[in-house]
Amino acid sequence: MRTVCVVGVGMSKWGEVWKRSFRQLFVDAARNAIEESGVDHIDSLYVGCMSGGLFAGQEHVGAIMADYLGMPGIPAMRVESACASGGMSFRAALLDVGSGMSDIVMAAGVEKMTDIDGDEATAALATAADQEYEVFHGATFPGLYAMMAQAHMAKHGTTRQMLTAVSVKNHHNGSMNPVAQYPFKLKPETVENSVMVADPLRILDCSPITDGAAAVIVCTEEIAKKLGRPYLKVLGSGLATDTIQLAQRDDMTTIKSATLASERALKMAGKKISDIQCVEVHDCFTIAELMVLESVGLFEPGKAGMATVAGETALDGRIPVNPSGGLKSKGHPVGATGIAQIIEIYKQLTGQAENGRQITSSPTIGMTQNMGGSGASSVVHILEVAS
Amino acid sequence: MRTVCVVGVGMSKWGEVWKRSFRQLFVDAARNAIEESGVDHIDSLYVGCMSGGLFAGQEHVGAIMADYLGMPGIPAMRVESACASGGMSFRAALLDVGSGMSDIVMAAGVEKMTDIDGDEATAALATAADQEYEVFHGATFPGLYAMMAQAHMAKHGTTRQMLTAVSVKNHHNGSMNPVAQYPFKLKPETVENSVMVADPLRILDCSPITDGAAAVIVCTEEIAKKLGRPYLKVLGSGLATDTIQLAQRDDMTTIKSATLASERALKMAGKKISDIQCVEVHDCFTIAELMVLESVGLFEPGKAGMATVAGETALDGRIPVNPSGGLKSKGHPVGATGIAQIIEIYKQLTGQAENGRQITSSPTIGMTQNMGGSGASSVVHILEVAS
Repeated sequence: MRTVCVVGVGMSKWGEVWKRSFRQLFVDAARNAIEESGVDHIDSLYVGCMSGGLFAGQEHVGAIMADYLGMPGIPAMRVESACASGGMSFRAALLDVGSGMSDIVMAAGVEKMTDIDGDEATAALATAADQEYEVFHGATFPGLYAMMAQAHMAKHGTTRQMLTAVSVKNHHNGSMNPVAQYPFKLKPETVENSVMVADPLRILDCSPITDGAAAVIVCTEEIAKKLGRPYLKVLGSGLATDTIQLAQRDDMTTIKSATLASERALKMAGKKISDIQCVEVHDCFTIAELMVLESVGLFEPGKAGMATVAGETALDGRIPVNPSGGLKSKGHPVGATGIAQIIEIYKQLTGQAENGRQITSSPTIGMTQNMGGSGASSVVHILEVAS
Repeated sequence: MRTVCVVGVGMSKWGEVWKRSFRQLFVDAARNAIEESGVDHIDSLYVGCMSGGLFAGQEHVGAIMADYLGMPGIPAMRVESACASGGMSFRAALLDVGSGMSDIVMAAGVEKMTDIDGDEATAALATAADQEYEVFHGATFPGLYAMMAQAHMAKHGTTRQMLTAVSVKNHHNGSMNPVAQYPFKLKPETVENSVMVADPLRILDCSPITDGAAAVIVCTEEIAKKLGRPYLKVLGSGLATDTIQLAQRDDMTTIKSATLASERALKMAGKKISDIQCVEVHDCFTIAELMVLESVGLFEPGKAGMATVAGETALDGRIPVNPSGGLKSKGHPVGATGIAQIIEIYKQLTGQAENGRQITSSPTIGMTQNMGGSGASSVVHILEVAS
């Protein structure tokens, strides 16, 4: 496969963006990415979107976005893997350029989630679980992750304090991120006194419902060099699935898809997990961040919680985790999240993170892990800054 | 890009399949494709599906299908471009193998459309059009294609008899296809006396609502040779979009996305349109078949209707079109249709079409054209049998 590079990134406003529609959010992000990268065209477009149908009454997402970007005619396709749709979009773009089919591709993601009410959004999100064997019986995502949290606490002695530390850290980072939906710091007691959603998960353990879009330009290294801007090389891509139902798994305290996907990405990159210097992981709930960090091998099973309390995953820690603020503070427009993770790694590795959010150790290699459902999909990418 | 081959194909039952669920339909097709190809594993899975959310309350379609196929762990992703989702799935699989990321990939498509009622299905299908500027104002797909038909009649003198000839031919072909939803012949007067849906389109001008799945195995040529079964080489792939709204187009009598996509596929294949010996095209309505045949250059503008009446597109004609029976007779489970087109070309080029449906001239090169919405997406593939 040809070397594939990331040359420019763009985001829309994230939050409850009532004044921008589904398509407008996409166009905002896409135009920013095109302007920042300096490309004069794109050969192809991928759009990650979990449920245009249920959230916005709009399928055919690739075509409509190409059209509203002012580029009807270009090849365009939507990809979906629930909340991992953004990461899938990046992978599809990687294969497009890597194969030689295209030279300059946009990988984007978008979701417009607040045009329906909260109950409807919860039901739409639940379609990432098994409709017949989980959702029909009343399961929702806070409930599924609460069961995983209970199992993790029972097995490893994970505590309320450890979950709180994830939320506090991510809000600290997000307070410096200009696009974050909730750019404010939290005190531990605020998290711990917030309303219970599904025991032990409180509202401030949960990522929010968000409108937003994100886009990156990927291209060949030859083009990246010509553009004369900072760029990353994609070293590895790993994609893996697991049983859709939580009940079918041998162990509810690890995310097997994250383990497999990271192994595949590291193998392709020719790297070890200890080579990774910063990560964006899928903290849809606080417990998810801990489980993923353990599943990809950055921490031993049961050790990520204490490490978070000790500051090892902070911006100045041994392995900074979710410098963007993560899903928790930055927001989680599900189809866009995986692309926004790539964008944060781009900013961190090229030294462009805003407002004091830059990781102090100046990392040169980073990883993203984007997840669908209760972990039935994970997609991992490893990126390195071009020297 | 590496040479990519098609080595085995499989379909589920197609029709109103009340006894098989969304996931079961997929598994039926996937198992058939695996058994027929003789592969002992797949490296990756792509599933084309227009709206798991609206038709079946199930997103995260890649992961759930990998799981129910008994292969949780493998990379899996859903792709969507409305009714062109199947063709997109094939293209994504082509890039996966072509890039060197995977060696053996399944490209599948599935839709379970009859678990909701007809009005709901019409509304779900309408999400392939522009929700804000077409659907909100009452447009449905029969209405959009009826406008295209009226324009085509006004410009080219296309007649009722020509539309009828498309339906009669496709039902003739489909009467010999064991998986067809409506495997019976039609008399011209039956078509012409059928109920009006949207003038001039009558019910027997329209493809039906269908449950069904289809799957093909694609792999490297090295593996295809080892398997020792007949196989096709993928010579070209072309994908193009157009404005999502019909009202935005300069000309309603051609499908510009089909023109662009076929040009791109022919260029990649190093072929001319006159090299193509048989085609499966997207006859969601009878008028669509005529417009596509003209748009890809198989006939001059306004000439496909008379040619159809004259038998030029019949099984023993100059250029056989929709030997499978097309969407009209075979059925149109929207996400699966593009894969079923590949399957028919596989059968025709390898001499395996059943029940006397085999094209008499023994074609060696064929083309598929799969379309989304009113033509806002087209994906074209060119395949040649390995000698």
